[in-house]
Amino acid sequence: MRVAVLTIGNELLSGKTINTNASWISNILSSEGANINRHLTIPDKKEAIIDGLDLLFKSKIDLIVCTGGLGPTDDDITREVVFDYFGSEEVFDDSYWNYLSDKFLNAGYQLFESSKSQALIPNNGDIIPNDLGSARGLLYKKNNTTLMVLPGVPMEMKGMVSHSIIPWVKNKIVSKIYSANLRTTGVPESVLFEKVKKIDFNSEDINVGYYPSLYGVDIRISHTDKKLLDEFRILIAKSINKYIYALGNESIENVLVNKFLNQKLTISTAESCTGGLIGHRLTNVPGSSEIYHGGLITYSNQSKINDLDISAKSIEDFGAVSQEVALEMAKNIRAKLKTNVGISTTGIAGPGGGTDLKPVGLVYVGYCDENILEVKKFNFTSNRESNKIRTSQAVFNFILSMI
Amino acid sequence: MRVAVLTIGNELLSGKTINTNASWISNILSSEGANINRHLTIPDKKEAIIDGLDLLFKSKIDLIVCTGGLGPTDDDITREVVFDYFGSEEVFDDSYWNYLSDKFLNAGYQLFESSKSQALIPNNGDIIPNDLGSARGLLYKKNNTTLMVLPGVPMEMKGMVSHSIIPWVKNKIVSKIYSANLRTTGVPESVLFEKVKKIDFNSEDINVGYYPSLYGVDIRISHTDKKLLDEFRILIAKSINKYIYALGNESIENVLVNKFLNQKLTISTAESCTGGLIGHRLTNVPGSSEIYHGGLITYSNQSKINDLDISAKSIEDFGAVSQEVALEMAKNIRAKLKTNVGISTTGIAGPGGGTDLKPVGLVYVGYCDENILEVKKFNFTSNRESNKIRTSQAVFNFILSMI
Repeated sequence: MRVAVLTIGNELLSGKTINTNASWISNILSSEGANINRHLTIPDKKEAIIDGLDLLFKSKIDLIVCTGGLGPTDDDITREVVFDYFGSEEVFDDSYWNYLSDKFLNAGYQLFESSKSQALIPNNGDIIPNDLGSARGLLYKKNNTTLMVLPGVPMEMKGMVSHSIIPWVKNKIVSKIYSANLRTTGVPESVLFEKVKKIDFNSEDINVGYYPSLYGVDIRISHTDKKLLDEFRILIAKSINKYIYALGNESIENVLVNKFLNQKLTISTAESCTGGLIGHRLTNVPGSSEIYHGGLITYSNQSKINDLDISAKSIEDFGAVSQEVALEMAKNIRAKLKTNVGISTTGIAGPGGGTDLKPVGLVYVGYCDENILEVKKFNFTSNRESNKIRTSQAVFNFILSMI
Repeated sequence: MRVAVLTIGNELLSGKTINTNASWISNILSSEGANINRHLTIPDKKEAIIDGLDLLFKSKIDLIVCTGGLGPTDDDITREVVFDYFGSEEVFDDSYWNYLSDKFLNAGYQLFESSKSQALIPNNGDIIPNDLGSARGLLYKKNNTTLMVLPGVPMEMKGMVSHSIIPWVKNKIVSKIYSANLRTTGVPESVLFEKVKKIDFNSEDINVGYYPSLYGVDIRISHTDKKLLDEFRILIAKSINKYIYALGNESIENVLVNKFLNQKLTISTAESCTGGLIGHRLTNVPGSSEIYHGGLITYSNQSKINDLDISAKSIEDFGAVSQEVALEMAKNIRAKLKTNVGISTTGIAGPGGGTDLKPVGLVYVGYCDENILEVKKFNFTSNRESNKIRTSQAVFNFILSMI
């Protein structure tokens, strides 16, 4: 199935908003076996929308997923233009209007007359329900192409794709492209590439892509023959086994929380340079409250000393960014919160604070459990936010190697 | 000047990689006054690239900025296809090849034969230099449209845009579009819209866009007349003053850290439902170590009692998610870390843990300074990650209203 994603919005073209809608939709529909053929982004302008629709309806596309411009303000013109494009008559949906009015009243707001557009439906197209917002979607068919129009608010769009579009796609797909993803971290792309290249397998027509990011390198393989793909995936997994933390799309914090749940282990965190990011990522995982007791963000030296009982002498002798302090932090947080595992981070996130001996990006990560007390040193060289993300990823990878 | 951005890459269409190149290019060229008219993303396929070029050369575009597919590996086909498209003859650039070979040798690598493509130049087009990588760009003119082809590696692309494209654009721009951004939070888009609509200003041709996200609603206005735009911006700012946290693109945590720095105040955090996100966002701001002493992530009840001295009776009587506990948390963290301000979050992030009385999305935020101890209640109704983000935003907004 050939799919095009049409995103409408001046904010996308001005670069104000990164087009995560297009990539999210593409990612989820690709994983169902659809072939995403084109992304087109156009401004909130009548002629541009008509041109875009004309262009995509003329291409050999089975499904056009369109987002943006369904809201109640006057820069939201997509509904009107689409109605026009298909010669739709506007029908006012009283029951939906009453439902919306009640909902807004319950939240303490009055629904304005300008929101009436939210209750307009076409006489010759279908409506796609929206459980999370007021703007419902539209569905039209023309020749062999289906157009689905969704709001641009990511949360609402995502709910509608999951509830309405995915079942539709699943039902229609004939020749499916299978793909598999292997997630690695802590190893450069080129090393993975050389290892995978050496695998002895007649895999010339298997598509292999390498996708580096701050979180590591993902390897994505795809082919129409599932059996062949599985065989190749097993060979890759064997050859780079020690770098892989997930087969699929699971995040490393998900893998970690589930491993802790399975082994009935608990964890606590003492964060300096990551400033709460590790706790944040752990608590993004539903059910993490069973394994994560909490932690300390000891951003100042004083807080390390007062709240985590780090010896002032260690800080004076070795500096707050040192393996000695990292080890003490991990040990003390574990004891303080009475968990199986305690971990710590201390480093120089940047942009300031670096010296020749301790440059920006230098990070120590401490790990402590019943039997082991260990520290790892990293030299990241990016900017502040990147260094924090790389550190958190290294922490999760370190823990996974220990339990 | 009308600009189109053409991005080439299977990883963009599969949704594996978010298209930050298109938004970065758009953002920087818009701020120079260019009008970004279209984004088109196509796969690494010969026919798709030819179709894409045909389409854009047929539109009324002054400049096409194209990225991706100039590298040395065999899935990089852009150079070859573009040469073909313009009937270019390949000329081998010996001096560039020697330069590259030396550069690689100095870095301890050998240059592979497969990299020879990097030294090919066209007989009928220009070369755009690349200081940060081996793939140089291409420049062609056809009728009134200029095509610039750049590598997709963000760092290299950005260097080339800054050095070569921006000066070119600056030189060509005649009628510049000015824009301004106002950032709000804690208020629905429709309420802002109604207020802005009532402003008495002959502003019919000023473009006003509303951009809602989990962080709030941004209002972006643009016009070719800077004086007119400024006048209108001042009127908007007056009419919705209490909802605005920034004029421009600054994040709310940036605004907050700078306000604390200016007033020489310090802050500490006691996070339950946000699990470290507030600390993380504060510490994303360079210089935050001056104002943020640290905090506690008290994710379990036991940790609230043991580490933050919350009375077990409060938790028993009112529950961990209650205004009483939120207040105690804010008060105790402030005392413990000896900061001017202490803040706290406790809530039900979801998806589990909700009851009829305390549903998913219920959040209490506590604030404590020398004179004031206050709590706010919020009812967010989204998923776990969204509830955490909304809570952190509400916390920052709450603090800004108090100091």
